[in-house]
Amino acid sequence: MGDHDPVRVFQVHQGGKISVQNKIPLTSRSVLSLVYTPGVGHVSEAIVKDPTKAYDLTTKGNSVAVVTDGSAVLGLGNLGPEAALPVMEGKAMLFKEMAGIDAWPICLNTQDTDEIVRVVQAIAPGFGGINLEDISAPRCFEIERRLKASLDIPVMHDDQHGTAVVILAALTNALKITQKPIETIRVIVNGLGAAGLACCRMLLAAGVTHLTGCGRQGIILSEPPERLIACRDDLLSCVHRDPPKGTLQDALKGADVFIGLSRANALTPDDLDLMAADRIVFAMANPDPEITPELAMGRCRVFATGRSDYPNQINNALAFPGMFRGALDMRAREINEAMKAAAANAIAGIITGDTMREDYIIPSVFDKQVVPQVAQAVAQAARETGVARK
Amino acid sequence: MGDHDPVRVFQVHQGGKISVQNKIPLTSRSVLSLVYTPGVGHVSEAIVKDPTKAYDLTTKGNSVAVVTDGSAVLGLGNLGPEAALPVMEGKAMLFKEMAGIDAWPICLNTQDTDEIVRVVQAIAPGFGGINLEDISAPRCFEIERRLKASLDIPVMHDDQHGTAVVILAALTNALKITQKPIETIRVIVNGLGAAGLACCRMLLAAGVTHLTGCGRQGIILSEPPERLIACRDDLLSCVHRDPPKGTLQDALKGADVFIGLSRANALTPDDLDLMAADRIVFAMANPDPEITPELAMGRCRVFATGRSDYPNQINNALAFPGMFRGALDMRAREINEAMKAAAANAIAGIITGDTMREDYIIPSVFDKQVVPQVAQAVAQAARETGVARK
Repeated sequence: MGDHDPVRVFQVHQGGKISVQNKIPLTSRSVLSLVYTPGVGHVSEAIVKDPTKAYDLTTKGNSVAVVTDGSAVLGLGNLGPEAALPVMEGKAMLFKEMAGIDAWPICLNTQDTDEIVRVVQAIAPGFGGINLEDISAPRCFEIERRLKASLDIPVMHDDQHGTAVVILAALTNALKITQKPIETIRVIVNGLGAAGLACCRMLLAAGVTHLTGCGRQGIILSEPPERLIACRDDLLSCVHRDPPKGTLQDALKGADVFIGLSRANALTPDDLDLMAADRIVFAMANPDPEITPELAMGRCRVFATGRSDYPNQINNALAFPGMFRGALDMRAREINEAMKAAAANAIAGIITGDTMREDYIIPSVFDKQVVPQVAQAVAQAARETGVARK
Repeated sequence: MGDHDPVRVFQVHQGGKISVQNKIPLTSRSVLSLVYTPGVGHVSEAIVKDPTKAYDLTTKGNSVAVVTDGSAVLGLGNLGPEAALPVMEGKAMLFKEMAGIDAWPICLNTQDTDEIVRVVQAIAPGFGGINLEDISAPRCFEIERRLKASLDIPVMHDDQHGTAVVILAALTNALKITQKPIETIRVIVNGLGAAGLACCRMLLAAGVTHLTGCGRQGIILSEPPERLIACRDDLLSCVHRDPPKGTLQDALKGADVFIGLSRANALTPDDLDLMAADRIVFAMANPDPEITPELAMGRCRVFATGRSDYPNQINNALAFPGMFRGALDMRAREINEAMKAAAANAIAGIITGDTMREDYIIPSVFDKQVVPQVAQAVAQAARETGVARK
């Protein structure tokens, strides 16, 4: 769990963690007349004539709203908007430190889908992108879908897509080690919340055909490949909760890959032994993984968690800063499937063949290559898919 | 209108004028585990237990949302949210430079009263105060009234109250020079938009009894003192547009004070000569005043404008930074009438008897005494009226 002394935690949070900085000091009337009235009137008039000028002449071009309703804060549950604020500030810090993006937290005191959609639509003009965060399933799907359809700036629910992108990156490299083609592997995704379903969608798009989804009850997503691929954009409609089509253990028999987005202790060492040889296990329950690394590492060819204190940390901070950086650089209208796939590919590509090992399939969040390479790949995909405005 | 070379204006606007700054650099895993997961979870849980802790442990305690719908941008009209953004950024810069407040622009793409109210209510949890800006009348009245009634943080439409506070401050000192008691003076307010009506309300609260309001048509607010005072909170209901009860010139005959919030050239030198001796004229139309200083200064005992290139600049930057500073310092639930009056009094009090002159009734916006003195007076009024939480 890292060295986070609670006393230190509260010390660093005193007064909040982010602030607003003026790019020019307002030290004289002449500067004031440039940045505020009357000079600023020229800028307003230029933007009225050509609204795209807002990207050049305001913060819009480099800003992201980090929007939450506080309904699914970290693994802690429905804590509400005020308690979500320190987490959104932390997210804003990551945007700034890693990608130079000016992100501001927007914590909503409504959990009504229609209202959240309407509020985000209303505040969108001042931002270059919208990062949805810690909004519970299934509302997060409809909220994101409706915002993507109605706004002309990128909208991404990071809990879904940031996580899915990094999982795909990690899996891409793990499969290079086990030398199994993605089309033939059998994959179990355990935990079909927002991240789990997004992960399933990305895996299907990347070529996975044998995919089984499990919930607490057991197997709740199990369809023939062609049916799964056909309903990829609405996987929730394929989820059947009652009765399950078998247990998690049934699903694990002969599986090549286990991806856990569920809860601590969901997996036992015996469960692992049900899987195929050269098994790949990503145990990403937060803060405690589905199985402890001590129990799992010796039983898996590749093992990863969401934790920073073990090898192979699958952390969405590898994805979202560079993804938004690339999207903002292109003034993209959206973040689409091609851009997400490009991000996963770029993250995987940072680990070259000669450095890749079972315990090094994914770069560190402090690896300075990550953000520029992800941004460049995402920007190129934006251009290629026609959503770039620059 | 000051030395704002348009080329320079566009140069300083490239990329926007404000940015987000991290208070702690994210240079190691150990810092990351303090400011983000898992450490931040302790802070979220502390805020769940005691929501007022958000004031200590997040940006809420020092942040203000600068909210506009772009319907009345400067004097330029209904330009919409994107074109309003550089103005709101300028406002945010003033908040930061003058009062150390972290303000972020929120530019709405709706001009529907109900929606604006709902959106601001929804985003309020993350902010310590709401500064409404450049929202056209009469919607601004209802929006502010409903937000004040429903939110537990200060909400102030600065175009109304910031302006009114500084006008009252300037008038307070001007009356010391002309030695006329406020209860006996005859005041004309020309231009009954948002600022004009707020100014009328503040003047009535401060003791003015003989008050006439004019619009383009002539006299449209003219009631016996007791009636005016009775409907002070809803002056709009006393405004009659058809037919006017006389011309501006009728109103000016024998008047002691003219306050213009109207338009360039609304006043002629002959008009001024209709007024009483020792007349006070505040010509604040923007960017060009109701009468040019060259024509007016010799004909008035005290003359003021909104411009920085003449003496006696009535600038709401004298009021709002210190008012929000004082309100945030007290974690005030609102900015009430007593706090506004205290702000006006504090601004007036900066000019001491021995330095006060006809052309020095109001301090400079760069006077470093202004914000702390206004903040202190507003904080004290918040405590005295029971709206302080600290």
